[in-house]
Formats: sequence, C-alpha cells, structure tokens
Amino acid sequence: MKSLLLAAALSAVAVSATAQEVKRPEFPFTTEKAYDAAKVAPYKGKHAAAYAYIDANKAAHIENVQRWVRQRSISAENDGVSEMAQMLAADLKALGFKEAELVPTKRHPGVWGYYDAGAKTTIAVYMMYDVQPIEPVGWNVDAFAGTILEDHALGRVLMARGATNQKGPQRIFLNALEAIIKAEGKLPVNIMLLAEGEEELGSPHYPDLIAKYADRLKQANGGVLFPMMGQTLAGGVQMSLGVKGNIYFELEAQGGAQGGPRTAEIHSSLKAIVDAPGLRLAQAIASLTSPDGNVITVPGFYDSIRQPNQEEQELINGVLPAWEANEAAMQKSLGVDKWIGGMTGREAITQYLFNTTLNMDGIWGGYSGPGTKTILPHKFTAKFDSRLVPNQTPDESERLIRAHLDAKGFTDIKLTRLSGYPPAQSSVKEPLVQAVIGTYRKYGITPSVMPRLAGSAPYYVFTDILKMPIVSAGIGYGAGAHAPNEFIVIDPKPGTKVAGITEAEKFYVDVVHAVAKR
Amino acid sequence: MKSLLLAAALSAVAVSATAQEVKRPEFPFTTEKAYDAAKVAPYKGKHAAAYAYIDANKAAHIENVQRWVRQRSISAENDGVSEMAQMLAADLKALGFKEAELVPTKRHPGVWGYYDAGAKTTIAVYMMYDVQPIEPVGWNVDAFAGTILEDHALGRVLMARGATNQKGPQRIFLNALEAIIKAEGKLPVNIMLLAEGEEELGSPHYPDLIAKYADRLKQANGGVLFPMMGQTLAGGVQMSLGVKGNIYFELEAQGGAQGGPRTAEIHSSLKAIVDAPGLRLAQAIASLTSPDGNVITVPGFYDSIRQPNQEEQELINGVLPAWEANEAAMQKSLGVDKWIGGMTGREAITQYLFNTTLNMDGIWGGYSGPGTKTILPHKFTAKFDSRLVPNQTPDESERLIRAHLDAKGFTDIKLTRLSGYPPAQSSVKEPLVQAVIGTYRKYGITPSVMPRLAGSAPYYVFTDILKMPIVSAGIGYGAGAHAPNEFIVIDPKPGTKVAGITEAEKFYVDVVHAVAKR
Repeated sequence: MKSLLLAAALSAVAVSATAQEVKRPEFPFTTEKAYDAAKVAPYKGKHAAAYAYIDANKAAHIENVQRWVRQRSISAENDGVSEMAQMLAADLKALGFKEAELVPTKRHPGVWGYYDAGAKTTIAVYMMYDVQPIEPVGWNVDAFAGTILEDHALGRVLMARGATNQKGPQRIFLNALEAIIKAEGKLPVNIMLLAEGEEELGSPHYPDLIAKYADRLKQANGGVLFPMMGQTLAGGVQMSLGVKGNIYFELEAQGGAQGGPRTAEIHSSLKAIVDAPGLRLAQAIASLTSPDGNVITVPGFYDSIRQPNQEEQELINGVLPAWEANEAAMQKSLGVDKWIGGMTGREAITQYLFNTTLNMDGIWGGYSGPGTKTILPHKFTAKFDSRLVPNQTPDESERLIRAHLDAKGFTDIKLTRLSGYPPAQSSVKEPLVQAVIGTYRKYGITPSVMPRLAGSAPYYVFTDILKMPIVSAGIGYGAGAHAPNEFIVIDPKPGTKVAGITEAEKFYVDVVHAVAKR
Repeated sequence: MKSLLLAAALSAVAVSATAQEVKRPEFPFTTEKAYDAAKVAPYKGKHAAAYAYIDANKAAHIENVQRWVRQRSISAENDGVSEMAQMLAADLKALGFKEAELVPTKRHPGVWGYYDAGAKTTIAVYMMYDVQPIEPVGWNVDAFAGTILEDHALGRVLMARGATNQKGPQRIFLNALEAIIKAEGKLPVNIMLLAEGEEELGSPHYPDLIAKYADRLKQANGGVLFPMMGQTLAGGVQMSLGVKGNIYFELEAQGGAQGGPRTAEIHSSLKAIVDAPGLRLAQAIASLTSPDGNVITVPGFYDSIRQPNQEEQELINGVLPAWEANEAAMQKSLGVDKWIGGMTGREAITQYLFNTTLNMDGIWGGYSGPGTKTILPHKFTAKFDSRLVPNQTPDESERLIRAHLDAKGFTDIKLTRLSGYPPAQSSVKEPLVQAVIGTYRKYGITPSVMPRLAGSAPYYVFTDILKMPIVSAGIGYGAGAHAPNEFIVIDPKPGTKVAGITEAEKFYVDVVHAVAKR
C-alpha cells in the first residue's frame, strides 16, 4: 500500500512538472435568465430640423470625416499627432465650444472641450484622435488619402486608417452636434469632451488628463459617451458596457554575463560553443503557454479572474442568439477557420469576454531578408499584450510573469512594460445606458447588450476614478481596425443592412436628446 | 515489490518525456599523442624576381583588391553578381589564362579558368566571388567603397564587405600569380580555377559546376588550393583540413485549417478565441533544444556523429596549446564573455569542431516598430542553420527535424530547406598539405593544423566527388566575416605580428612553387 502511494506520488510529481496540468479557466453559468433589451421602450423624440440639416449638408459632413482621416496621427511614430490635436480643438471652437484647448502631457497632447448649453444635464464624451501605424503591405489605397470607393461590396465606403477606429464615428458625432446647434440654436446638454492622442500606445497619460479635469468632469451627471460604428453586417448592434484592461510588454534576450554575443552578431559556426540569445528567447516564450499557445502556464495568472456575476450572465444569455447568428460571418471576415479547439456559442463568447489573453504582437532579431545568412545574432525582442479581465491588474500580471520567468531560470530575459491599465465596466441599469438602448429601439434595433468588449480602452478612469458610467453608442458599419484597408460605409448598397453616415448622424441627434431627458 | 517496480516505471516514463535526458555529445580522446608540424622541413625555394615584382607593384596590387571589393556581389539579393563574375573572368584573361569563361547555372554563374603552363603538376583553385548582405547598422564606412583606414589599431587596413571573406585573399593570390608570370615567364604549375557566386547561399549549384568540369578537374594531380587570410592576431596560423557541412532551412507558422488567421493580422483581443501562429512557432522552436538552447532534442540528431579518429585526435592534441593561447582573445573579439557552460581548452575546441549545431539566424513576424501595436499576426518565419559533421548528411538531418516536429504535433509548422551539403576533410599526410605546411615553416610559422573549420564550404565536391585533397592556405590577417566592419590588414603597425599583403603575396609565390615540386 505504501508502495502504491509512492507510485502515485512519483507520478504526480512528474506530471506536475509539465505544463499539461494548467487548464484554461472555465466560466460555468448559474442562471439561464436572459436580459432582453426589447423590453426597453423606444425613444419617442423627433428632431426634424436637425435631421433636415444633416440631409442638406451631407457632402460637407463627409468632407469633415475625410479631412480628419487625411490628417496623419500615428502616435507610435509621432507622425502628425499635434496637427491632429489642433484640428480637433479648432473643430470644437467652430462648433461653439466655449473651451477648446490642447492639454500638454509628457508625450502627445490631450484635447479638452467644454460646451455650455446652460442645461441641467452634462455629458462627458471620450475621444481618441490617434491611429495605429500603417501595415507595410496589404493596403489597396493610400491609407491617408481619404479615398472614397464607389464600388465596394457594401456600397460607397471611405477607406483610410482611422475610418472606423475612431476618427470616423467621432467626426460623425460632431457632425450631429453641429446639426442640433444649427437647427435648434444650442445643444440640450452641456458637453465635456476629453480626447487623448495615445490610445494606441495604451493611454499612458490619460489618467493625468483626467486628474487635471477631475473636478469639472465630476459634474457630468449624464455619464460618459463614446461614439463608435456599432452595427454588424446583419444590421444588429452589439453594445458593450465595458472593456478589458491591457498590459503591453517586451521580452528581450541579449548576450551577456550568462553567455552569448554582447554587442553584435557573430558567425553562426560559433553556435557550437556560444550561447544563442534567440533560442533562449524562444524557450522563455514557450514557457509562458501550453504547446498549442492557448493556455497561459504562468502560475497564478488566472487566479484573480472572477466568475461572471448575475447581471453579466443574464447579458451573455441575452446576446447569445445574436452572437451565434454572427459567428460564421465574424470568422469569415477575420479569415479564421474556427475558434480555438472548435468552440462555439456560449463557450466562445464567454472565453472571448471573460478570459484573459497572452498574445505575441511581434518578434524580430537577426536576418530576415531573402535567402540565407549564417549568423548568431546578439539580440532578439518580442512584443506581447495581455488583455485583463476583472479582477486582474497590470501590476499583478507583470509581477507573475516576471516571477515565472525567474522561477524557470530565465533571469537573463529582460521584461519591459510599455503600458498597462485595468478593465472597466458599467451596469445596464444606468439611466445613460437605458437612454442609448431606447434610441437603438427607435431605429428598429434591439441591441445585443454585452457586459464588455474584448478590446481595451482606459475607461477605468471614468468607472473607477470618477465613479461614472460610460457607454459606447452609434449605428453604421466599419471594419479593419488595426489592419489594412480599414473602412466605414458612407452609403450602403440597396439590400445592405447597415446604416450610412447620414442615418448615423441622426441617431446621435436622438441620443443626445434622449440623455438630456433621462 | 511489484508496486515499487511500478513506481520506478512511472517515474521513468515521466522523466523520459522531458528534454533533460538528451545530452550534448561528448568526445573522449583515446590518445595523448600530438601532431607536430615543426617536424615538417621548411620550404627552401627562393624566387627573388617575383618578390621584387611584388614590391615594385604594391600600389597596383592594392588597387586590384579595392576594385574587387568595390564591385557589389551580394548573392542573396542578386546585387552586382554577374558584374563580379565578369570582372573575375576578365582578370584571368589578363593574367594569361587560356580559358576564362562564365558558366551559367540556374541562378548565379560560375567562372572557369584554365592556365596551361605545360607543367607536370596541375592544381585546382577554389574561389567564391559572392559576399554576404550588408547589416543595416554597425558599419563605420560604406561597405562597398573600398576604404583604406590609415589609423586602425592594427595599422593600415582595407575595410569593406568581402575584404577577408573571400575577395581579399583571392585577389591577393592572383596578384602573386601575376608576379610569377611577369618575373618568370609562366607559372610552374597548370591551374584549373572554378569559382562560384553562391557560396553565401549554401553553394546550391557548385555540384553542377563540378560535374560539368569533372573530367578536366580529375587531372588536377596537385589537389585543390583555397586562398584565405590564415593568421591569428598572435601571428600564428590555424590550418584547416576540412569543413563542416550545412543545412539551412526556414520554419514557418501561419493560420489555416488548424486555426489562426489565414491571410492577415487581426485585432489582438481575438487571442481569447483564436489560435496564434507566433506562439505556435515559439513552441516548435523551443521543442528543438534544451532550455538553454544548447542541446538539440531532436531524437537521433546526434546518432550519426562519429568520434574523432586517431589522426584527428593527434591534430587536436597538437593545436591545443595554440587554441588555448588564443581563446581569451577570440572571446574578446567576438564580444562573448565565455563559451557555453564555461568550457575551455580541449573540451571547447572539440565541441567547436566535432559537434553539430542548431542555430536561429533570424526570426520575424508581426509588429517590430516603436511603441505598441496590438495585433494577432497571421504569419511568423524563422531561419535556421545546422552545421554538419561526419557522418551527418543534410537529408538525414532534415528528415529527423521534420519527424520530430510531426511527432510533437507540429504538423502545422512548415519546414523549407534553402540549402544543404555534407562535410568534407583531407588527410594531413597528403603531399599538397605537406607542401603548404613547409611553406609556412619557411616564414617562421609552425601552423596549428586543425582537422577542420567550424564553418562550412562545399569542399565535398572535391573530397567526395573528385576524390582529391583540398587545403586552404595564406598568411595575413582579416576579421569581421559575416559582420559589420569586415577588414584585412594591408600594412601592419610596427609590433603587430601579422603579415601585410606584400608578404602574403610572396607566400603564395612560394606555395605555388612548393606544390610544383611536391
């Protein structure tokens, strides 16, 4: 009997030394109740003068969007950023914002704007005016030409970096404000707008901007609005009540006291007696996940993830039919044959929204040209991001990864954090959220209300620091964020189920009024 | 008792599943006898007229070398290659080679030359006229300007791509032939010269060139000579009687039926439900070696390596003092603090020359610019080379790596061989080798005679296909092959222990005569 126990013990020890034992977190549901947005009454307001202004000024409004996407603003490459900030501030001034100013940070400036309508309700608006770098291959048009394509499969589209993420919907929102002001004399709400130019860098200084205007922003009793193109190809809307957090870091291997070339590549024949930083980095990276790359083997990395609460489970149950209807189209548009392990439906959406990630954004080192070059390079670097879910934090995640690397003997691998912020979320019960849902309902859309996006934004500054709800809102369609050939639909083809930009502007006219009446 | 056996069995199974068990091959010696090149009689010939010609034409001879390194010939980038081939053929014609012609291959042309001296002895000369691509950073001069630096630490040097690998020593050899022809009317040997323009690509078509001239080359009863800068900084010479082979291949991971994005990068938030080709490639690479990157864990990869034979052991025992004297300087010039695991002396040189390697020459995929970009890239690629020792073959090595990847489940990782050839070696007892050693002895140098280089060249076409010995020969000093700031010494500073190019040319005058008398 003792021997059998020993056998089991030995076996357990051996197995626990492998990565196979770590499992992806599962999120078992405790309720089948589903949130139903169809029970929210449609918004009943009609704002004919503003709608007419939008119809009459369509060409100028499209040009506004083109002007924005033509202005480069690649934050990672400091390309056109301050010019874009100035363009945004000038546009706010032109709209009648009493305050419109650039706010210096340690890197790219923020933009603060205040529109004083003398109204009871004040809303805050989050904007980001920076964009991702341009992919060297894959673009069918000049990414900064503001090209209108007449014959896109979806109709007339604007194809440009920033078209959908996020200059397009933001300038469309300002077009809507212009329409209200011109048609009605003033807005029905006061607006505090705080834009950043570093969202694509992980928003390192947005907390500073928030801190500077915190006393003002706390007066925003209507909550925070984030304009975006909300429709799927099927015409539906997936509302998201929150975002994941993010930590972005680099891992670097270079020759040093532990071995390997310190300062320059050497002839590859020396591999027989010289340590290789590249193979070392590959080992360190491999130690972070299971062999399929899908389970994070960093001890404790999953521990702080909380299970979905009652509201979140009801929201997921509510959006599941829409997710399932859209799943194949989503895979097709991504060029992905299947989700991990062939999962679908509730398992897929729950993993998507409630699980953390570890992703390699890029890796480089040594020779990458054509043909052969036989070198032992001295330095290799890889970029990673991890999307954080409640209750993960960037500090804890970084600490766990560093501790894991050290425990595995990878003390020679350098870890440098480039950015990080925690997740954020608002409740569906917030009046702001209910007003937005009511507006969708007016447009015949019953939104799928998701507890959060799988993507990241620094909403924690609103939800955690200012203690106010934030919600994204908008109709219309865009695609290709962070990818070549990003676009938004300007005029959908007949039969297409998404709104064009004129309708998207009318939607924002309604949202602003709905929030004023909340 | 049965349970204890079960325990042991379970334990053994578990341990054998890990990489820790695979060990680096060891090469225990069975003899302490040492080869002593000092027992070879110095060459006694004097060729005063040729020496005087070399002294009188120093400036023109330096210009010949500059002209060669200024002519770009980057085989991997098809940059200047055919122009360099034409320059070589024209130079042979000018020297009085009866035959001098470009020989087409499927890619870059070879160059064949025949000098008919009506002599009893015919030697073959191997040349390569191509060079490595230029490193984007690290060069202190234009790599193709043929810059003479007056104030280098070693004296007057020529700094350029190809200065030492191999245009410099090759053109110096031709300068020496010119001196003999001008001073003595003709060469004392017939010469068959066969150059390739694809050495840096792994010599894919050199076998075709050899096959085309095999009947002629078999008449080269003197063997094959390969000119190179043979001295170390201490003034000594390490002769190498052979080379390792090489297999160069790429591993590539891309989304497909197994999961992951097929055609373009996607937003990194999708990592929660989409497989990642990059993490998958890291796992495949990590599976090839031990955690320190230094033991190849591909089953059977070491099996065909034969132990050093009696002659090889004696040669190693003979060169060990020179290796040990040079070891610290070698590490310093490479920017390497120590060899793998801190090994030194016989262990280090034996691993260097008798062990195979697996080296990652480069890796790339995704975003490598400044700052952060959050993408899940669809494709990652890494380049590898493995140096092959007797009795490894490229085919067997590739088969084992592919089989290992498949066995580990990495059937989704694509392996593409870019080049490959087996190792080669000549015996120290060959008359050609003895003639070269005798010439070094005349110059006061007792060479360290190594059984092989750790680097690779396609000498198997001579040793295995034509069944003739090949030896590299030359004095003078160069450094920086396959690296920035490659150079050769033109005129050494007083106190420097290496020869300048004038002396290097006189050495070749002697070698050619010594071989004629062998």
